[in-house]
Amino acid sequence: MQELPLKQVVLTDYFWRYYQELIKETIIPYQYDVLNDALDIEVEAERKDDYLPKGKSHALENFRITAGKTQGEHFGWFFQDSDVYKWIEATSYVLVKQRDTVLEGLVDEVINLIGSAQEEDGYLNTYFQLKYPELKYRQLYFSHELYCAGHLIEAAIAYDQATGKKELLAIALKLVGNIEQYFGEEEGKIQGADGHQEIELALGRLYEHTGEEKYLTLAAFFIEVRGKDPLFYEKEITQNIADGLTTDNPNVDLLYLQAYDQPKNQQTAQGHAVRMLYMAASMAKIANFQQDEKLLQACLAIWENITTKKMYVTGGVGSTVHGEAFTSDYDLPNDTMYCETCASIALVYFAYELYKIEPKTEYFEVIERAIYNGILSGASVDGTHFFYVNPLEVQPESCHHNPGKGHVKTQRPDWLGCACCPPNFARLIGSIGKYIYNQSEKGLWVNLFIGSQLKGEYFSIVQQTNFPYENQVKIYYEGVKQNVHIRIPKWLQNLTVTGIDDYDLNEGYLRFEAYPQMALVLTFDQPILSISSNPKVSGNMNKISIQRGPFIYCAESIDNEIDLHQYFIKTKNISKGVVSQTSEILNQTLTIEVQAKKQQSWTENVLYQYNQDVIFESKSLKLIPYHLWGNRGETEMRVWLNC
Amino acid sequence: MQELPLKQVVLTDYFWRYYQELIKETIIPYQYDVLNDALDIEVEAERKDDYLPKGKSHALENFRITAGKTQGEHFGWFFQDSDVYKWIEATSYVLVKQRDTVLEGLVDEVINLIGSAQEEDGYLNTYFQLKYPELKYRQLYFSHELYCAGHLIEAAIAYDQATGKKELLAIALKLVGNIEQYFGEEEGKIQGADGHQEIELALGRLYEHTGEEKYLTLAAFFIEVRGKDPLFYEKEITQNIADGLTTDNPNVDLLYLQAYDQPKNQQTAQGHAVRMLYMAASMAKIANFQQDEKLLQACLAIWENITTKKMYVTGGVGSTVHGEAFTSDYDLPNDTMYCETCASIALVYFAYELYKIEPKTEYFEVIERAIYNGILSGASVDGTHFFYVNPLEVQPESCHHNPGKGHVKTQRPDWLGCACCPPNFARLIGSIGKYIYNQSEKGLWVNLFIGSQLKGEYFSIVQQTNFPYENQVKIYYEGVKQNVHIRIPKWLQNLTVTGIDDYDLNEGYLRFEAYPQMALVLTFDQPILSISSNPKVSGNMNKISIQRGPFIYCAESIDNEIDLHQYFIKTKNISKGVVSQTSEILNQTLTIEVQAKKQQSWTENVLYQYNQDVIFESKSLKLIPYHLWGNRGETEMRVWLNC
Repeated sequence: MQELPLKQVVLTDYFWRYYQELIKETIIPYQYDVLNDALDIEVEAERKDDYLPKGKSHALENFRITAGKTQGEHFGWFFQDSDVYKWIEATSYVLVKQRDTVLEGLVDEVINLIGSAQEEDGYLNTYFQLKYPELKYRQLYFSHELYCAGHLIEAAIAYDQATGKKELLAIALKLVGNIEQYFGEEEGKIQGADGHQEIELALGRLYEHTGEEKYLTLAAFFIEVRGKDPLFYEKEITQNIADGLTTDNPNVDLLYLQAYDQPKNQQTAQGHAVRMLYMAASMAKIANFQQDEKLLQACLAIWENITTKKMYVTGGVGSTVHGEAFTSDYDLPNDTMYCETCASIALVYFAYELYKIEPKTEYFEVIERAIYNGILSGASVDGTHFFYVNPLEVQPESCHHNPGKGHVKTQRPDWLGCACCPPNFARLIGSIGKYIYNQSEKGLWVNLFIGSQLKGEYFSIVQQTNFPYENQVKIYYEGVKQNVHIRIPKWLQNLTVTGIDDYDLNEGYLRFEAYPQMALVLTFDQPILSISSNPKVSGNMNKISIQRGPFIYCAESIDNEIDLHQYFIKTKNISKGVVSQTSEILNQTLTIEVQAKKQQSWTENVLYQYNQDVIFESKSLKLIPYHLWGNRGETEMRVWLNC
Repeated sequence: MQELPLKQVVLTDYFWRYYQELIKETIIPYQYDVLNDALDIEVEAERKDDYLPKGKSHALENFRITAGKTQGEHFGWFFQDSDVYKWIEATSYVLVKQRDTVLEGLVDEVINLIGSAQEEDGYLNTYFQLKYPELKYRQLYFSHELYCAGHLIEAAIAYDQATGKKELLAIALKLVGNIEQYFGEEEGKIQGADGHQEIELALGRLYEHTGEEKYLTLAAFFIEVRGKDPLFYEKEITQNIADGLTTDNPNVDLLYLQAYDQPKNQQTAQGHAVRMLYMAASMAKIANFQQDEKLLQACLAIWENITTKKMYVTGGVGSTVHGEAFTSDYDLPNDTMYCETCASIALVYFAYELYKIEPKTEYFEVIERAIYNGILSGASVDGTHFFYVNPLEVQPESCHHNPGKGHVKTQRPDWLGCACCPPNFARLIGSIGKYIYNQSEKGLWVNLFIGSQLKGEYFSIVQQTNFPYENQVKIYYEGVKQNVHIRIPKWLQNLTVTGIDDYDLNEGYLRFEAYPQMALVLTFDQPILSISSNPKVSGNMNKISIQRGPFIYCAESIDNEIDLHQYFIKTKNISKGVVSQTSEILNQTLTIEVQAKKQQSWTENVLYQYNQDVIFESKSLKLIPYHLWGNRGETEMRVWLNC
């Protein structure tokens, strides 16, 4: 299964155009200004911890200092550089649609700066260059040097694809050259991988971009070497101490790092969710290119573990803030979870790689779930506020006063000390066009209902629709004869197809043979659905969540009364809910109003009573799409509702 | 309201004799051996954190090293000394009932050791003596020096009361002398209090024991000075750094320390629960003795805040492990809470002090709730395993793999690196006799149904009962004419009183005038009650807990099936539950079996399904008293059950 060049896809969609415009007009300029410390905003730590960086980004300044253009000290995380790289990547996805001299001028300037910061031998990481040059490539358990390199590579590819300009690619290749010099299975080279996976995925993409086998080989080396010697990181630390380079003697948590065994032997999702999923995505990519069956089986086992036991209904993953990590099967607390925006993005990458191996609908079900819910929620509709953590249940008082929820922000901050998510949001949502269509030897695949046009070499296809606001998608096709497969989401009902007679519905796909010039119309319902959770998930017992179309819905107290946990809805009333359009949050937002009852509060000021009757009053409950929560001030929010 | 000397109360009770024997025969010898590092046991850190002390107690060895009897370094917490003091106090409550030469020999030896470790000027704290003598009384925000002193004082009083031996009291008074030299409102003395309250309560007791006003004055000083200068601790740190004594520059959390304002101005329970409640108990004691109305009003406000908004149904307090602290109103998570054994003990102290000011039944309702549930659960029935944290809901897999529950142990450890709870359990349960009776100018008060005999100077009273295993209490009275008030618990029904005609039932008390020789019989039912939680508590919505007599009940999967959250019970079925006696855990344990249904697990290996019908199967659910949970191996446990 092939990816199609992003250039070939033009978005005409109302819903997604909003986000494309937001990225271009607001997010990209805003993020540049933040990285440049040019805005008077509040940069918050990602959770309550006085030792975490906050107050400013300093990401571009770190490069300037390294390049000798200004004086100062490195500030921020050891992976602060990656914020800049991800911003370039996101900007490239704007430029690939439409070149822009001013914006390119800005990017070229940044690229120039990055180049000036790079060392002669290709090494590039402002944190180690400025603070600990003696520890380069010697603290891999935390250093993120190869992680940052990975993001540089991805940015370079994207910018090349968008503009044909090679300067950043040259910088990236020079860095890769440096990495090749130090890492590899040859004797004398470092037999270890970065604590935070990312280089593996980036090198896989570099192989796709350049066709050069050696990048795939290096990616595969990093996957193969991980966990091969579980003591690798311990030895590294001991050696550094013995060499007098540092006194740091941290505990290495091999589960957190997915280095307790080689990836090919891993069967479940463990540890830090973003690391786990960047790794899994690269494993799938490598398994695909190298026809590595064992690696593929590991990917499928991990996929099964996540999607049947460890994924929130919003497509969020990572049940705990401690290590931003996966926990045990069916452990999905709704109020203390992590559900980092980046982790859902990484889940999309993983799903997409598996899809390219075998186009089962389950992969795009997860991609759709994550994109429309747990990822879109990562940014405010004004494009200048970002969530790191995407909770499914928020009681503001508890979040403010229970430190176990110190990471659950009730409002999207202006920016974050650890700012991995905001530019990641921009690069994923900015490249949404890449996920709509694919091509394989079996024909063309349409994965998502998004108003758009794909212009291939020998054909073009158009989706004309105001989905998700309407229940119709018109498809126009021109070009060579080929099979077309349209994924039919599980949430739709009463599908009718007009314009063609000869089609089949199989394994979630509507398949037909497209002829040189044709049009068809899909019409369907988007009923309001109640979602039950597997009874093994204790926190969702007695509760349902609501879905309509690709959107998971939530209740906010701003639309209802406080104490949302006192509302109860009857499953049988759900489908009778009333859908209305409002422009209150986002133009054309569809809200849902369902019949509910609310348990009355007690008049007695006591905590406990014996044999107490429960008294309800009739209420209606208004719901909005989950991704729009928190856009109207601090409010209670809840996805899973009592039933 | 007067406390009566513990000597005057003889326990004859079947239920409580078990615990008294356990303390005497097992707990006291076991704890001595642990403090002496004489046992091959596993001493666990109180939560998952590699930086916490574990592996051994070393508490007595710390004294030996300080006394110069052995060589070595201090090990353990800076408050490790207090474990020894609390052990002496608990041992004294055994000795007060029956002198024992061998045991006293052991205690006297320890007292001798403590004396040898004390400095000439009276100072005593092995941590600072061995590790940081230059920082004595200079790191009050964490030092626990006065906290340890408080426990020494309490031990000394108890040992004096039990044996009449004054050696430990002399050591304590010498230390108090040293404290008086350094602390007080006079110019040049330290104008601050210990970060961890305890000295205040101990000095109050010392005043009661000796009648010396100056101890009460010093106790009141520590309460008055707390929070008076909120910058006190910051200044202390700055001064230490300026003086080159340390580079430590920790953040001072004034809420955690209850030092954000003077205690008399505090209205809610904030911060570390044990500190909060030791402080509140001492505030009430001082308010009582000094007729301080403002302090009393603060106590009453704090009491109201805790009991109507921040107390678990088990009498547990402290909703979070972070700072072992109170959080916001109605924030009572059942699976991540702290509910430290010590915090419930401290709640009993606070309640008892308030009760002595005004004998409202609400105070003994809380005392009874805490003792029979959240405190008794602190030790295993074999007396050699102890909980620090007393959860209301345990899923072992989640506790093992979700670090947010890293403090929730599924089994009672042999001992803890921070061992405040085990000896605190021994001293509270060992002194249970002190809570049964009180005397005031209004007469005699009977607070708890416990088979026992009180021999006063002018009267004696006997409770003959096999409560809680039977529903009858016979009361025999001999002596002077006086009013007797028997607290009638809210959980009993159908009370009948025989033997007297003239009595009244008022504000929760059965009151009658006792004449020189009389007998009466109280007969009642102990129905199975369902408890509802205030609807403001989101985690208990749709759930009930079960109580019979003073016991809160819980379900364990060892008696049922796993996935206890899939069980549902109907409130109306509760009273029809079947009570049976078993000797499986503790002799005569009363279990309850109720009709329930269990939601069937799904056959599909998926996390979410649309519009799914819920299928139940009939089951019965067996419940045991909460305090006995976890005595039969690792198992799921749940107090709040779906209804």
